[in-house]
Amino acid sequence: MDAFEKDRHFMRLAIEEAKKAGAIGEVPIGAVIVCNDEVIAAAHNLRETTQNAVTHAELMAIQEACQKVGSWRLEDMTLYVTLEPCPMCSGAILQSRIPRVVYGARDPKAGAVDSLYQLLNDRRLNHECEVAEGVLSDECGMLLTTFFRELREKRKQVKAMERDQKL
Amino acid sequence: MDAFEKDRHFMRLAIEEAKKAGAIGEVPIGAVIVCNDEVIAAAHNLRETTQNAVTHAELMAIQEACQKVGSWRLEDMTLYVTLEPCPMCSGAILQSRIPRVVYGARDPKAGAVDSLYQLLNDRRLNHECEVAEGVLSDECGMLLTTFFRELREKRKQVKAMERDQKL
Repeated sequence: MDAFEKDRHFMRLAIEEAKKAGAIGEVPIGAVIVCNDEVIAAAHNLRETTQNAVTHAELMAIQEACQKVGSWRLEDMTLYVTLEPCPMCSGAILQSRIPRVVYGARDPKAGAVDSLYQLLNDRRLNHECEVAEGVLSDECGMLLTTFFRELREKRKQVKAMERDQKL
Repeated sequence: MDAFEKDRHFMRLAIEEAKKAGAIGEVPIGAVIVCNDEVIAAAHNLRETTQNAVTHAELMAIQEACQKVGSWRLEDMTLYVTLEPCPMCSGAILQSRIPRVVYGARDPKAGAVDSLYQLLNDRRLNHECEVAEGVLSDECGMLLTTFFRELREKRKQVKAMERDQKL
């Protein structure tokens, strides 16, 4: 498997994680952390389930990886995530010294890797990452588009039901 | 107690948290979260102890507060922290919708509230905070200065001992 296929392979696993989130009504975002071609952590967004503001996929995967290796330094690892990380998760990537990040779809509203900020490539900070974007981006983005479209439709149905009850 | 004295009072509690970190060899940074004049979460930096990259004082206090109130939204709360939050913790503050942040000393190397970035006041993001800085900043900063000076002295002593053993 060449480097291109490897990135697609691990992004597919991140997509599987994202689907687990979607299946329980969470915004479908997933992440895996890979070390020596082996997945050592996998997580998906759980904000509504946990009611904990910091339970984004990346942040939980980073914590799982730290626990696995017994160190806050995640050297020689790659983080794969379906959506461009937000400021919090980009900051967590810097804190854990992960050297490489691969993400799927851009997040023009809150992305802090390329869109609104370039936190992973700021020479003033004490760590920089290699970043690859756009791996299976259509599939990653489609998960979100579909999720939000279905959510809007459900809301419309609920509103229609409420209106009918009032009549 | 007027607003000025109230901020100093809660910052003193954050300083107490920071001292707990220093006492166990952690960089002395502390945070408390206050709701209706009551401390509902308190935490200090534990990165070395936990070997978990995300265990900064603010991030742990935010998680504790979410658990206490059973919600990822920390509305009507104030976070007090001895040092200007980093990108990760500033991002976590945005995620949890905390409306007000008070910090002690600036962090010119990694601060993301005023120094390197102004993450808490970016109209493009979906939340903005009221920020007050400089509350007991000398005391907050001195904790760090003293900690790092003592660390350098200890390292010097260890090096001298190693040199003596080689002779």
